[in-house]
Amino acid sequence: MNFATADRSARVEVELAKAYRLLNHGPTVLVGARHGGVRNVMAAAWNMPLDFTPPKIAVVIDKSTFTRGLVEASGRFTLSVPCRAQAALVTRIGACSGREIDKAATLDGLRYADIPDATLVEGCVAWLDCRLLPEPQLQQNYDLFLGEVTAAWADPRVWRAGRWVFDGHDELRTLHHVAGGNYFLPGAMVSG
Amino acid sequence: MNFATADRSARVEVELAKAYRLLNHGPTVLVGARHGGVRNVMAAAWNMPLDFTPPKIAVVIDKSTFTRGLVEASGRFTLSVPCRAQAALVTRIGACSGREIDKAATLDGLRYADIPDATLVEGCVAWLDCRLLPEPQLQQNYDLFLGEVTAAWADPRVWRAGRWVFDGHDELRTLHHVAGGNYFLPGAMVSG
Repeated sequence: MNFATADRSARVEVELAKAYRLLNHGPTVLVGARHGGVRNVMAAAWNMPLDFTPPKIAVVIDKSTFTRGLVEASGRFTLSVPCRAQAALVTRIGACSGREIDKAATLDGLRYADIPDATLVEGCVAWLDCRLLPEPQLQQNYDLFLGEVTAAWADPRVWRAGRWVFDGHDELRTLHHVAGGNYFLPGAMVSG
Repeated sequence: MNFATADRSARVEVELAKAYRLLNHGPTVLVGARHGGVRNVMAAAWNMPLDFTPPKIAVVIDKSTFTRGLVEASGRFTLSVPCRAQAALVTRIGACSGREIDKAATLDGLRYADIPDATLVEGCVAWLDCRLLPEPQLQQNYDLFLGEVTAAWADPRVWRAGRWVFDGHDELRTLHHVAGGNYFLPGAMVSG
């Protein structure tokens, strides 16, 4: 599988037992899905790891989103973890709907990797490919979607020995949504 | 209601419609609960907002935890959002079980606010008081607990006009767990 990281350099597979660490520190993600030849991606600050092995994740996907229909129809979705270089793109992705426009054809800088059956956003720093764990009542009542992570990758410039290390790569720091298109970047690391 | 923030200064109520923003950027939290005169608190990196109004949140509470029984028995729980000054305390809280020790009697620096029917940890920078939304299958199958936020507070030194502002208060920055007791602090803010 060959897709591009932020500067189209290499990407490495993430051991599934450590895939939870991609989301552990609370980044905003892009949720992607495809069905019947149609792809879309949306922004989601509301996501979290749910289990270690097999790795599972939870993400909130509102009823108003176009992505939701693609997830429910295909039974699969992806999480791409965007970085500082993509902050404006993430906000733009979140401000329009795939019901109205083809985001990849409209938004500068949004490119999907050329991978069958997955919708991974190029230029991100990590990606999780997920199988929907169907929970219709949960989806209907809470807009809450659960997935099992079946594969995960990260940009080796910022993912070393199974954890995030952003030193020297400010443009690749993950985005943590505050409000209104403002994001904290992960800063200093402390040990407790 | 009167309880102490990091240096026992004031705390302000957070408008419920903005309570989701306390967790939006992905901090590790302390989950507290009490039942029958027994209190406990545990650390949880796996949490997220679930809805705006009324505000709801989701958090993973493992079957092995003592806190889980208190939550299920009382139908209530709290999330306290700890800060840099508490990094070592958070790691210690996560490394022992209320089944074996009374954490507040054993761990230096862990104090519960003197508030009836809630277990709020003093010295944190935000607090959410929650009513459990009982979903027994979800709890059993995924260790996933949902709550409606019925009240929320924050430390006004770092919570201004409805959002986090940590400038000038490094000791009050929230903790974002990486792995093994290492935490990112929120650093620079970028607009996208």
